[in-house]
Amino acid sequence: MKHAVVLLSGGIDSATTLAIAVAQGYECFALSFDYEQRHQLELEAARRVAASLGAAEHRVIKIDKRVFCGSALTDDVDVPKHRLPEEISAGIPVTYVPARNMVFLAHAVAWAESVDAGHIFLGVNAIDYSGYPDCRPEFIATFETLANLGTKAGVEGRRFQIHAPLIKMTKGEIIRRALELHVDLALTRSCYDPAADGRACGECDSCQLRLKGFREAGVADPIEYVQSAART
Amino acid sequence: MKHAVVLLSGGIDSATTLAIAVAQGYECFALSFDYEQRHQLELEAARRVAASLGAAEHRVIKIDKRVFCGSALTDDVDVPKHRLPEEISAGIPVTYVPARNMVFLAHAVAWAESVDAGHIFLGVNAIDYSGYPDCRPEFIATFETLANLGTKAGVEGRRFQIHAPLIKMTKGEIIRRALELHVDLALTRSCYDPAADGRACGECDSCQLRLKGFREAGVADPIEYVQSAART
Repeated sequence: MKHAVVLLSGGIDSATTLAIAVAQGYECFALSFDYEQRHQLELEAARRVAASLGAAEHRVIKIDKRVFCGSALTDDVDVPKHRLPEEISAGIPVTYVPARNMVFLAHAVAWAESVDAGHIFLGVNAIDYSGYPDCRPEFIATFETLANLGTKAGVEGRRFQIHAPLIKMTKGEIIRRALELHVDLALTRSCYDPAADGRACGECDSCQLRLKGFREAGVADPIEYVQSAART
Repeated sequence: MKHAVVLLSGGIDSATTLAIAVAQGYECFALSFDYEQRHQLELEAARRVAASLGAAEHRVIKIDKRVFCGSALTDDVDVPKHRLPEEISAGIPVTYVPARNMVFLAHAVAWAESVDAGHIFLGVNAIDYSGYPDCRPEFIATFETLANLGTKAGVEGRRFQIHAPLIKMTKGEIIRRALELHVDLALTRSCYDPAADGRACGECDSCQLRLKGFREAGVADPIEYVQSAART
C-alpha cells in the first residue's frame, strides 16, 4: 500500500484532500501543526476528521510560534471582517503567516522520509483562496523539485510527489466533492475568529469563503454560526 | 543597514559564515535550532559564537524532534567512527537528518519576513561535507526560487537571496578564512558524539573533517579531544 503524508488543518479543504487520498488507495499519515494559533479549535477538528476518515496515524507537531510572528492568526492583530470574496482574493491579507506552507511542507517531507511515504497531499487552493503566495501552483511545483533535490529518498530515486488535488477547484466544487466522498463537514472548522463557545463568526475571510462555497454547492453548512453571521 | 538571518549551529562553518556576513556589513540575526539533538553542546557554542561576533540577536527555535526520527543525530543509533574523508563524502550516512536544511531554511525565511531581512546565510559546504543532499548548490538555488515564490516579500518584489559563501571551499580554506576574520574557533563545537565532559571524540565524521581542515590550514585545533583522538 502506498504511503502518503496528508497535511490536515481541520478545515474543509484539508478534510476533502484526506478523503481523496484515502479514496485513491493511499495509507494516510495525517499531519497537523500546533503553533499556538488563535483558533486551536481547528486542531480538535483535525483529530476528529483524521479519525472519521480512517487515517493510519495522526500526528500533531509543535512549531515554535515565535518564528511566525507578524500575523493576525498568531498575534494580537484584528482579523479582517465583512470582506467580499473578490476583496479577499485581491491581495495578501494580515492573516498571512510568513512562510507557513513552506514550514509545513518541510516538516511533511521530513516525516514522509521516516514513514517511507513518497506522496504528500495538501489542500491548497488557488481559486477561492485568501491570496496567500504559498497556495499557488508554481510554489507547489517548485517545492516538489526541492524535495527531490534535498532528501535522501529523492537522491536515491524514490521520487517525492506533492499532490494538491483542489488547487483549481472552486469552494463549491470542493464541497460537492467532499459530499460525494461522505466527508462529515460538521466536523470541520474554518473560522479565524470563533466565539468562546466555538461557534464560527461568519464574518472573517475564511467564513466568507466557506459560506460562499456552501451557497454554490446548494447545501446548508452544518456548523453553527453566531447570530449576526446567520443573518449574513 | 541590510538585515540578514544567519543559520548558526555552533560549528566552524556556520561561525565563519556569520563572520563573513558581519564583515560584509549585514546586521545579523542568528538562528539556531533545538531539536533535542544528541550534541546539545552545539547550542551553547552557538550562543557564545553569536555573542563574540556581534549578532544583533540570537534566537534558538525549538523543533519538534519527532519529525526528525530516523537519524543517528537524534535517535539512539551509533554514530560512525574512524571513516576516511573520502568515505565520508561517498554516500549519505546514518547521521543524515531527514529534510533538516529544508526545515531550517523554511524557519529562516519565516523569521526573515518578520525582521525584514532579505538575506539568509548558511554555512553549507559541498566539498568537505558529509554527503548530505541538502548541502548541494542545486538545493540552495532551488530553495531561493521557492522563497521568492512562496512569501509576501518575494511576491512584492523584495527578493530573498540565499547566501552559501563556503559552498565551494575546502575545510582548510574555511579555517583560514575564519582566522583572517578573527573567529575564535575555540568557541566552536563540531563533534557528533562528545564525551560527558564535552571533549570531542575525534573519531566521528564531523571530527575527522574538522581535524583534516586544521591539518590543511597548518594550525592546531584549539578545542580539546579525548585521549584516543589526540593520538589519531
